[in-house]
Amino acid sequence: MSLLVTGSIGIDTVETPFGKQENVIGGSAIYFSYAASFFTPVRLVGVVGDDCPPQLLQVLSGRNVDTAGLEVRKGSKTFRWHGSYLNDMNAATTVKVDLNVLAEQAPKIPQSFRDSQYVFLANTHPLLQQRMLDDLPACKLVVADTMNLWVENEPAELRKLLKRIHGLVLNDGEARLLTNQKNLLAAAKDVLTLGPRFVVIKKGEHGCLLCSGDQIVVLPAFPAEKVIDPTGAGDSFAGGMMGYLASQDAFSLPILRCALAFGTVVASFTIADFSLAGLQHTTRQLIDQRWRQLRRLTSF
Amino acid sequence: MSLLVTGSIGIDTVETPFGKQENVIGGSAIYFSYAASFFTPVRLVGVVGDDCPPQLLQVLSGRNVDTAGLEVRKGSKTFRWHGSYLNDMNAATTVKVDLNVLAEQAPKIPQSFRDSQYVFLANTHPLLQQRMLDDLPACKLVVADTMNLWVENEPAELRKLLKRIHGLVLNDGEARLLTNQKNLLAAAKDVLTLGPRFVVIKKGEHGCLLCSGDQIVVLPAFPAEKVIDPTGAGDSFAGGMMGYLASQDAFSLPILRCALAFGTVVASFTIADFSLAGLQHTTRQLIDQRWRQLRRLTSF
Repeated sequence: MSLLVTGSIGIDTVETPFGKQENVIGGSAIYFSYAASFFTPVRLVGVVGDDCPPQLLQVLSGRNVDTAGLEVRKGSKTFRWHGSYLNDMNAATTVKVDLNVLAEQAPKIPQSFRDSQYVFLANTHPLLQQRMLDDLPACKLVVADTMNLWVENEPAELRKLLKRIHGLVLNDGEARLLTNQKNLLAAAKDVLTLGPRFVVIKKGEHGCLLCSGDQIVVLPAFPAEKVIDPTGAGDSFAGGMMGYLASQDAFSLPILRCALAFGTVVASFTIADFSLAGLQHTTRQLIDQRWRQLRRLTSF
Repeated sequence: MSLLVTGSIGIDTVETPFGKQENVIGGSAIYFSYAASFFTPVRLVGVVGDDCPPQLLQVLSGRNVDTAGLEVRKGSKTFRWHGSYLNDMNAATTVKVDLNVLAEQAPKIPQSFRDSQYVFLANTHPLLQQRMLDDLPACKLVVADTMNLWVENEPAELRKLLKRIHGLVLNDGEARLLTNQKNLLAAAKDVLTLGPRFVVIKKGEHGCLLCSGDQIVVLPAFPAEKVIDPTGAGDSFAGGMMGYLASQDAFSLPILRCALAFGTVVASFTIADFSLAGLQHTTRQLIDQRWRQLRRLTSF
């Protein structure tokens, strides 16, 4: 089943204790698309400026990603992010951010994408996320991400969005902020009262927690001895998860459990190298192998 | 198989956002003994002063705990600890600590305990831990806990101890300090080079990690919506783990996996109430039920 993602495409500069990479490809939609494309065809909706070096976008060539929804906007500049993990590998410090084209009009969903049934709305203004949904009348499963900025500045629009989506994926700090609950299980349960049928709380190196009705799933992260660059881990997690769900055309709890494990594993490849390199160096076979390994690691 | 524990017995005053409890029973040996006694007979070695109200020690009556090694020392005062979790439920702030009898001569291991095969050396001076071992010639599995204080102040004695034990249980901060590794998997592997056959790193609300040879086990904590008092969680975890190992008279990796899950579950009962109340209100049947629930929560 085809999976549509809308999100950011950016040119990143990233510093970690293992080095500095300048002007590499990044953005939620890129990480998500690459990760999901191990499982299912992906439809990408995003926008860059005409300053974006074409070779950066080549990262998706040869992948099962339809870029009909990728707009190169003339006269605009690509989103840029400069982040540092020098102080804390678990939380990026933003050195500089230029929204550029992301602050302009949103990209359009091509007509050929409007029958998409699986949709991931990566983090952006909740009003934009809702507008995207208006153009996706066929969707069967909509999952969204969000961030602190919208929780604090656009609570009303975020709440409207939450009533229209099936799943919310967010990190622990965002879940606490959204619900005013310190305890993550309590936070997850509160999110469910706001609309979504399920919520996934990403805890970085500590794994993830899913709540759906009164069902709970908890998974640790895949143990990694070396984390080179955590950028894109959350988007890769979401890509692996949604890619698997779309590939199964199902999202029952047993399928969601497997999908969470695939998200966990795909993210573990992302953080093993800078930018997209970790994903570029893996294969579906290696992902499946590590997925079985994660099952062994956690079984008793 | 009988399990011997040596550790502290204390009178605690604990403050959490849920209230304050004054002069309640505490100490590593008490939490460990109670937790382990769900699985196997326990032999307790510890010392209190003659100021310790006998009714506090009644907490172990009716449990399968042999207190022949519990010394009530005349003219001495019981160890006291006053801790607060008001700022952070994951880390106690020590308001006041009086070592009292713990700063005196260690309690003796009774002759009737010297054939113990399963031994847990709760956190204390590594020299004392070694002396205990000298009096336990029959032991088959020795597991020890330690803390920052000994890592920093007694590194040579701690290293000697590590060469004599089979397993080390310690928390994430202690593992990082001991090995100078930020990454916990790298830290765990480094610990193995110091002697122990296996190491368990406790990560509080984030679960635990075991390394043995090139084998890894990762388990999340049991998701708890309400944590009332985290005191004793780590000792209860160790008690559940060691109690199960002793009950099986085995410590192969599959048995260790099950034991970690029992430790996880027993700790989840401890933190649900103040002092020993959470353990006092549970049963082996409820523990087994939650153990199966944890397996469901983590399976995919």
